[in-house]
Amino acid sequence: MGKARLEAFSDGVIAILITIMVLEMKVPHGASLESLRPTLPTFLSYVLSFVYLGIYWNNHHHMLHMVQHVTGPMLWANLHLLFWLSLVPFVTGWMGENDFGRVPAALYGVVLLFAGTAYVILQHLIIKSQGKDSPLKRAIGNDWKGKASPVLYGLGIAGAFVHGFISLACYVTVAGIWLVPDMRIERALRADE
Amino acid sequence: MGKARLEAFSDGVIAILITIMVLEMKVPHGASLESLRPTLPTFLSYVLSFVYLGIYWNNHHHMLHMVQHVTGPMLWANLHLLFWLSLVPFVTGWMGENDFGRVPAALYGVVLLFAGTAYVILQHLIIKSQGKDSPLKRAIGNDWKGKASPVLYGLGIAGAFVHGFISLACYVTVAGIWLVPDMRIERALRADE
Amino acid sequence: MGKARLEAFSDGVIAILITIMVLEMKVPHGASLESLRPTLPTFLSYVLSFVYLGIYWNNHHHMLHMVQHVTGPMLWANLHLLFWLSLVPFVTGWMGENDFGRVPAALYGVVLLFAGTAYVILQHLIIKSQGKDSPLKRAIGNDWKGKASPVLYGLGIAGAFVHGFISLACYVTVAGIWLVPDMRIERALRADE
Amino acid sequence: MGKARLEAFSDGVIAILITIMVLEMKVPHGASLESLRPTLPTFLSYVLSFVYLGIYWNNHHHMLHMVQHVTGPMLWANLHLLFWLSLVPFVTGWMGENDFGRVPAALYGVVLLFAGTAYVILQHLIIKSQGKDSPLKRAIGNDWKGKASPVLYGLGIAGAFVHGFISLACYVTVAGIWLVPDMRIERALRADE
Repeated sequence: MGKARLEAFSDGVIAILITIMVLEMKVPHGASLESLRPTLPTFLSYVLSFVYLGIYWNNHHHMLHMVQHVTGPMLWANLHLLFWLSLVPFVTGWMGENDFGRVPAALYGVVLLFAGTAYVILQHLIIKSQGKDSPLKRAIGNDWKGKASPVLYGLGIAGAFVHGFISLACYVTVAGIWLVPDMRIERALRADE
Repeated sequence: MGKARLEAFSDGVIAILITIMVLEMKVPHGASLESLRPTLPTFLSYVLSFVYLGIYWNNHHHMLHMVQHVTGPMLWANLHLLFWLSLVPFVTGWMGENDFGRVPAALYGVVLLFAGTAYVILQHLIIKSQGKDSPLKRAIGNDWKGKASPVLYGLGIAGAFVHGFISLACYVTVAGIWLVPDMRIERALRADE
Repeated sequence: MGKARLEAFSDGVIAILITIMVLEMKVPHGASLESLRPTLPTFLSYVLSFVYLGIYWNNHHHMLHMVQHVTGPMLWANLHLLFWLSLVPFVTGWMGENDFGRVPAALYGVVLLFAGTAYVILQHLIIKSQGKDSPLKRAIGNDWKGKASPVLYGLGIAGAFVHGFISLACYVTVAGIWLVPDMRIERALRADE
Repeated sequence: MGKARLEAFSDGVIAILITIMVLEMKVPHGASLESLRPTLPTFLSYVLSFVYLGIYWNNHHHMLHMVQHVTGPMLWANLHLLFWLSLVPFVTGWMGENDFGRVPAALYGVVLLFAGTAYVILQHLIIKSQGKDSPLKRAIGNDWKGKASPVLYGLGIAGAFVHGFISLACYVTVAGIWLVPDMRIERALRADE
């Protein structure tokens, strides 16, 4: 019961974030194709952030599937995750308006890194609440994606000071490795049935 | 279960899109009736897009009715559809601000064409998952609407370079043929009961 | 089942409308109390519109309670209602920015009149679908509120051309008579239990 | 049944409020770290308001848990609470843009005070509807948090005229004492099981 409302609230926030980002793409004043060009970096940032929020929604969905009982700390860990995700439209707009400049590209990575950390904290609280033999723990296994992501975010943040496109490449790579929905959890779920 | 959350998330995104479009209609500074006139094309674009999003919500609703089991690829195909729909407020605003100019009118059609394609992909994945004798496949039948729409979008995009009103006529026609809720699915559903 | 999704979608749209209206209240640049003064008419318009949307949500809630089966035309009548409600933030902003000027005050009434008409159409479709001895028909009884509202909206629209405050008085009156939740439906429901 | 829709609507509004606040953080034009500095007070206000809305969502969640039957006055008391919460993004933006200036810092407290009062009214209506031996009444006990908060808000409002940081300290203190989820209700619930 509490879980349904937690899911609904998280879905609501993610659905709003994924949609208000598009408001950062200001309608250009001219009517020609060239007048769209300045919008292009913002559009690309938007696509990347859309994919990221889609991944978070997707994995959040899979993870909460395995929760039997929502505790107070989980509610707050979830709000903490939503907080960092709520900054995504801001850093997306800033990165897009500045053509993937150094500081904006680095800050984008910082926000992703905090969001990732918040996700890991939530995941940890759920595993802890399930006791040993936690089904979620079994499902995520060695969690190589969870370990590789902060390293790649770190590379992206550092790389921003060489060139924004290096960070972009790192962030696209992280999105790529997560884009595959979390097969491990699906497999574990199916094994349970 | 997973289906309920997919529906809720899609409904959330479409509800937000259908409402934030109205934010593109900037409140005019004057207080006279004439000061509203520049808002008129934006208003007409808003009406058209409202109808389109209403149709998508409606048909999405009917289609998901027939899904028994949500798979990973369906989740992503659904997000892909939502992505194109999320660009509707942007192109609506651009088309409205430029009095149905050529490039904006064409781009509006391009976004509709991609959204339509994304819908067909989602539909295809659902049919495939249902195996032969898929109830959804039976329900959509020869799918003449699904076949006519891309042709009309194409005409609309090409026609934009003659005059924006030609594209507008094409888009209004597509909306018209879909406005009738998908009787076929309703009929098939009733036959199943 | 279809009803749950219709409710959820309508709630979503109304929840968004009631909240984005606050975005029309632009944050003033100064930090003094006087710098807030220009925001006052917008604030008062916001309060009025918040109450209106609250009334619509409340009555919609009560009315859908009595629906057993959602039909295609009901879905569209509901979207039609949401369309007129979606224009409320726009006319609220315009009326507020122009200190209840004539044309904005009249247009506000026009949008309310259309929204009210759309509500009556939806109500009519529900009653028709319930056949004779419709519980909703019994519940609304002689519907004096439904009959008085368009008259008051009409007075408000006409009165706007004398002074915006006359319309305001009319709109506040309509809100006042509806503010009492629809006791008749509640009574009928209780009688059924 | 009515309760589910009340929860869903409230969650929707709070989810939207918590997310649109981020739109008040305007994307800066420069690309350097310094160009972010003017955004800092707005960011801090945003963090504070995010925590407040999170607390409201959390406690609202716990309180509605204990409601068996939603009455008409509860619906309106809930809308009244949502009204004051809907002003949070506005006062957050104003306080942030003016570096915690006197009037904005005081107004922020006024809105929090009204929201708190609205919450108490809703709480009171629920307790009254449960008759004597109300489980909610038992759960909140002596309600020292509910009594301390208005005092602290009052101090914050008065303190604003000395310095905005005094109010800020008061508001942070209130957030701090509520941040702990309402253990009393959880304990009472567990005792009931």
